[in-house]
This record gives sequence, C-alpha cells and structure tokens, in this order.
Amino acid sequence: MNGYRDLCVALLGSGSVGSQVARLMLENGDELAARVGARLTLAGIAVRDIDAKRDAELPQELFTTDAERLVQGADIVIELMGGIEPARELILQSLKGGADVVTANKALIAAHGPELAEAAEQVGAQLSYEAAVAGAIPIIRPLVWSLAGDHVTRVMGIVNGSTNYILDRMDRFGDSAEDAMRVASELGFLEADPTLDVEGYDAAQKATIIASIAFHTNVPVESVHREGITTVTAEQIEAAKQAGYVIKLLAIAERLTAADGTEGVSARVYPALISREHPLAAVYGGKNAIFVEAESAGELMFYGAGAGGVETASAVLGDVVSAARRHVVGGPGIPGSKHAELPILPVGEITTAYQIMLEVRDRPGVLATIAGLLADRGVSASSVEQSISQQADGHARLVIGTHRAREADLAAVVDALRGSEVVQQVTSVLRLEGDA
Amino acid sequence: MNGYRDLCVALLGSGSVGSQVARLMLENGDELAARVGARLTLAGIAVRDIDAKRDAELPQELFTTDAERLVQGADIVIELMGGIEPARELILQSLKGGADVVTANKALIAAHGPELAEAAEQVGAQLSYEAAVAGAIPIIRPLVWSLAGDHVTRVMGIVNGSTNYILDRMDRFGDSAEDAMRVASELGFLEADPTLDVEGYDAAQKATIIASIAFHTNVPVESVHREGITTVTAEQIEAAKQAGYVIKLLAIAERLTAADGTEGVSARVYPALISREHPLAAVYGGKNAIFVEAESAGELMFYGAGAGGVETASAVLGDVVSAARRHVVGGPGIPGSKHAELPILPVGEITTAYQIMLEVRDRPGVLATIAGLLADRGVSASSVEQSISQQADGHARLVIGTHRAREADLAAVVDALRGSEVVQQVTSVLRLEGDA
Repeated sequence: MNGYRDLCVALLGSGSVGSQVARLMLENGDELAARVGARLTLAGIAVRDIDAKRDAELPQELFTTDAERLVQGADIVIELMGGIEPARELILQSLKGGADVVTANKALIAAHGPELAEAAEQVGAQLSYEAAVAGAIPIIRPLVWSLAGDHVTRVMGIVNGSTNYILDRMDRFGDSAEDAMRVASELGFLEADPTLDVEGYDAAQKATIIASIAFHTNVPVESVHREGITTVTAEQIEAAKQAGYVIKLLAIAERLTAADGTEGVSARVYPALISREHPLAAVYGGKNAIFVEAESAGELMFYGAGAGGVETASAVLGDVVSAARRHVVGGPGIPGSKHAELPILPVGEITTAYQIMLEVRDRPGVLATIAGLLADRGVSASSVEQSISQQADGHARLVIGTHRAREADLAAVVDALRGSEVVQQVTSVLRLEGDA
Repeated sequence: MNGYRDLCVALLGSGSVGSQVARLMLENGDELAARVGARLTLAGIAVRDIDAKRDAELPQELFTTDAERLVQGADIVIELMGGIEPARELILQSLKGGADVVTANKALIAAHGPELAEAAEQVGAQLSYEAAVAGAIPIIRPLVWSLAGDHVTRVMGIVNGSTNYILDRMDRFGDSAEDAMRVASELGFLEADPTLDVEGYDAAQKATIIASIAFHTNVPVESVHREGITTVTAEQIEAAKQAGYVIKLLAIAERLTAADGTEGVSARVYPALISREHPLAAVYGGKNAIFVEAESAGELMFYGAGAGGVETASAVLGDVVSAARRHVVGGPGIPGSKHAELPILPVGEITTAYQIMLEVRDRPGVLATIAGLLADRGVSASSVEQSISQQADGHARLVIGTHRAREADLAAVVDALRGSEVVQQVTSVLRLEGDA
C-alpha cells in the first residue's frame, strides 16, 4: 500500500507480551507503515504448542511451531519466548541470517548479552532489548544514546514491581510482610513461585544489564551482590518512616574507586533506606523508576510501569520501529515526520476541571443559585467549601471544585458567576489537571 | 589515533552551553572517539565578537567570526547561537552542505521546525534538538523513538525551571509572589527581563515542540493557549495546599475530540492544580519533568535538570554522538559496545551508610563502648536514637545512623557489635542510599 516495501517480521512467542505485540502490529499496520516508511508484515508467530488456547483475535493461520523456518528470511525477529534455550540459539540464527533482533528476555541478555551483541555486530545487525528492563520505561535507549556524550556515575533503580508493591503496602498501609505478600499474590504481582522476585534475582538480572550498558563493561550476573526483601520487617519499615526514610529494593550500578585506587564498577541489589524526599520515594505500587546520575546531566529519573503485557509491548514496538527505519533510508530519519496534520483545536474544546474561588453574599439560597448557574451550562460541582470571607462582612468565601467539563462551558460558568448579583467577586479560577 | 576517521565538527556559539560543549569535546576526545568509532574533531568555534572575554581554557585559535566558512565542509554542525537569524540561515546552509545539525534553539525550532526538518530530510541529513526542550532530560528521543510504536494521548510538562522555582518557593516556603521572584532573580533563575519565563512564552515554545513531535502534527507556536504565573497569588497557593493540591505551570499537549467529533490536538500553557500525590507534584525548585500518557505504555515520567550550561551540553553531545555514528557503520550500532572492561569491584568496596538497630543493656557506658567499636573501624555515627526496648526489661533499643564509610568497614562494625557483650541483639542492618 502506498508503494511501501515490505519488511518481514517474525514473532517468537505469543504470551502476555507477544500476543499484545501481534495485536498492535495488526491493528496499527497502516499507521506503523506511515511512521516507518515500510510495511511491517507479520510473517508468523512461532509457539511451542499449536493447540494451546490462545488469543482468538489473532489470525490462527499465523501460528507455527517451526521457529527455525520462520526466522529464515525475516528482516526483523522479535523474541518473546523467554528462557535461555532455544531463545539464544534462535537469536543467533536470526542474526546470522542478517535479521535485526528485538527481545524482552532479561535472563538471556543478563547471561549472554555480550555473546549476542558480538554476533550482531559481526553482521551489522541490531540487537535491541529496551523491553528487558523496566517494561514500558525507556531506559536502555537513554543510557545508550542520550547519555552517549556523558559519563554515568551511578544508577539506582526500582526495577521489580512485585517487591516494590509489597514494600509499599508495608509502608503506606502498615501491612505485615506476610499480609503484603498475600495481597501481592492475589493481585497477580507474584508468581506461584515468588523466589525470583522476592529474593532479588529478577532485579539482579536487570542490574547486570543496566551496569553493562552504563559503564561499557561486561558485568556478569554472578558479580551482582544480591539481597532480597525477605529480611524486611514491619518494625524496620516503621522505624524508617519515623526517621523520614522509606525502604525500597534498589538495584544499584556505580562507578567507584577501590581502597587501593583501582577504578571499577559495582552492581548490587538490596533493600535500602532512602529519604522520603528523594524522587525514588514517590514510586508506589508496582511502578518502576530508574534514577541516573551523570557528570554533565546531573540527576535524571525515568518513571513508569515496569511490567505488563501491553506496557512491555510498547517498548518492543519502539525497538521494532527503530530497527525497521534502518532499512528504509539508509539511516534513520525521524519517524513520522510526514505530518499527520491533525487540526489544532482551540482551548475551548479541552476537557478539564476548575477550582473557582469566590466571595458571595452570606445568605440562604446562594448555594442553590450558584449550583443552578453551573447546571444550566452542563457543569456540576464535585466539591464546595464555605468559609468566612476575609474580605467583607456579611460575605462568605466559597471554593467550588467542578467535575470535568468542556473548557468553553466552564468559561461560560465563570462569566455567569461574574455577572450574578449573589457573587461579589470571582477571586480565582484555576484548572485542575492530572485526574486527581 | 587508532585508525579512526575524522569527523569535522563546527560549533556555532560559545555561550553557557557552547563553551561547555567545546570543553567536553576537547577533554573527552579519546573516549568519544572510542564510543563513536570516529574522532570528533572540533574544527572551530564561530562567535560574534572575537575579542569578547571568554573561556580561557578553550584554545583561542579555534575561534572565528566566519560562521559561513566554518560550516562548509563540516560533517556535523552544532548551533548554539540562539535567536532566529542568522541561526536559521546557517542551519539551512549546513544542511544543504550535507552536514547533520544539532541545536538547542527552542525558539527557532518552535517557529521554523517543519521548514528545517524538511530541508534535512531532502538531503538525508539529521536534525536533532533534544537540548531544545528540558535541558538534560531525554524527552525528544523517547517521544520520537521509544514511543514510535505507541500512541501518545497526552503530555504534561513542567518545562520552565524559573517559574517552577518561584511557585515552589511560594508553596513550600510560603513566599509571596514578589519575594519568590526576587529570590529567583538573585539566584539567577530569572533574566533581567523575566517576561519570557513568567508569562509562559518559554513554556509555550516547548509545548509547540513537544506537541509536534508527540502527535506527528505541525503545531504552530501561535496556536498555544498561553497563561503565565503572574496571576498566581499566595492565597491561591494556600487554598491549593489545604485541598491537597499544588500549583504548577504546566505545558500540556493532548489528543482530543471536539464537541463536533473532530479529532485534533490541543497545546496550552497555564498554572494548574495537581494533586500533591501526582508524580509531577514532587518536582521541586528549578527541576523539570515531563509526564507522558500513551495507549500501551501507560504513564511515564522523565525528570531532571531542565536547564544549565553543562546539563544542556549533555543533551547536545548525545545528539552529536548519534549523528556521528551514522557516518561510521552505515547505521548505528550501540556506541561503545567495545567494552571498557572495567574491573568489577566487590561489594566491600562500596561507600554507603548504615542504619543499625540494636538491643543493648540499658546501663551507663554502653553508648561509649559502641561509639568506640565504630571509631576503631573508621566509622562514625551521624545519629543515635535511644528508646525503651520492646523486647526485654533492662534493655534499650538503639538506632544508629552512621556516616558514609566503606562497606567492608561497616560490615566489620556489625560483626563487632554482634560479638560485644553489651549488645543483646543486632535487630536490623540497612544501608542508606541517595545521599539523604
């Protein structure tokens, strides 16, 4: 369509991430083609068990068990099978065949990253794994590219949503460790065997990848000092809170100088105290965040959803588009610079909520009058607070919070209030953003 | 050196950002060459006034007033002059000559971005402007590349450090608007003419750039609805705080549907309330943050220093390395995959602080004994809190915070405490991270 060349994409795996990647590629085929400048054609989805119950929305004819055949001739291979083998072998075959590879396989990259990167470099193919660390949050690309002219000195990450959820429940809800783990299991934050998460193995794999990228050094996963959260008690959490700290499981990668003057790197995972004023302290529930310190850039933080099928699919597709663009113009331009040319809508069309502060006559019926003014324009109040006016006797101060409505309607409300004889003054109008 | 080809880099401007870019390129020449795979040779620095007092650390022979000649034959041109002309004309000349261009010029990109992007695309050159928005924080690259497979629905940014500093002083320190502005001026957050910042013009330019990138649509700067902070009063700030909100100057870019069903985009700047629990609320002082909502990725936030000479230089150099890599292998590999091969240092070498919770005999001399145990191993206490033991009569609970020390020394302290006859139990040992 539109004269776009076809790029053949092979997908290995159709689990929680793979099925989302397939769905998004199929649903957004035209738009992705416009952004890339070539059509990403999903040639097939390799799975272990062809008969397993799977997403009925995906065309069944795409499924195959012959992964080796699928990757032959592919321009881009997306590996979402997980595990070390046969993922590693299939990635090597794909690279040998000249395909770019996109993966989310943190265990594989942590254990065999250098070997795979070497294989990619030998053939001039691209190996990308943004999705292997911190789900949807861009961290690999910023570390590799945005900070390529800088020196990273330290990276501290909350990279395991399961343990962050548990520690957060203990901190903000006062749960015991057992109760927090039970709730986490019920909500799907923990697998049947929670060891990988609670003993810090998952975080250690991510620490390996982050440290290797940040410091241009091969950091083997065995070299990561690892402590999980099983020793964290409610008493420690409470003592931390009293002292103005919070306990977080941190993956830390750092440049440092040994006592004997040797310059080196350290990678470790352990539960640690951080100040409640630190940006990492405001990372709640299953969220992840990576706090980077670099010589020129100073402190940066990348925050978002660390896991989830569709969230991780976002990171996978970002890498797929990057890989695909390399085939298009001999080097990437900015995808989608062909403008979508959407119309610019005036501010009257936005949906927002208002907080209106007014001085009104302090007498019966005023609230009803004001509520009527709102209702006549399709706006309803979500909160009203009344207090004694600081400005004039016989007056009251009202702070009205509205529900979300069209700005044009909200502006009309303000005009009506200004013109109302029960309103002495509209002191302040502020919009409320962020779905608070 | 090492057989690297030379890439000729022309720098236009030697102000607060340009002088840092030049310094970093010269100081880190070898390392940048290893990362890029080619040597970035600074061919010259074009300035308006050759006699102006400038950074004496930079080789004076690099300076020239002939910018037009300097850009001829350059592989990469870095435009850090600011202003519309002659920056725009020089960028067009550079692109015509086949050079990649890196700029921090938000006013220029906001006003002429599409024209310049078109010119770059026509010759297959790269135009990058990460440094034009939010200083050191990677936001352009994540929006363009990491989210290239996603749909961005809304972006809300704190993108002007000056106004955030003022509003933050009013909120956390109770300053009046006048006092906050005075402090901001004294600290260099405001120019002599603060209009660009306080009236929201700077934020509006950034909103334009963000909206254009996020929605693949040309959003002219005139279409940005703009309100500054001059109407924000101490009374509003206090009322916001009482209600659990904070007032931030937000630049908002959003996909939305008009009342008549038209799909379009909106871009605006205004002071708005957000919940104090929102991630954007924890952005203090001169810091910036951009909160992105995308269909698959969900909520992401990018946080850091929004301005500053060396901070912005980090973003410039990231773009320079990206541009340079395109010349090296016919497409970018991961820079620096040739491992730096730094040694991995064991956890005993890290420097950290401990919080140690212990049960001790409640009798005179115990604190002195414990302090001696620390001092003998080169560790000093930064805080000691004593309370009645919950565990045993005649005992006290101590919570000791140490100053930062080598982990090996801290571990030795814990061992000594465990072996001490005044210590009944070491209940908890936690590391304290983040320079709290």
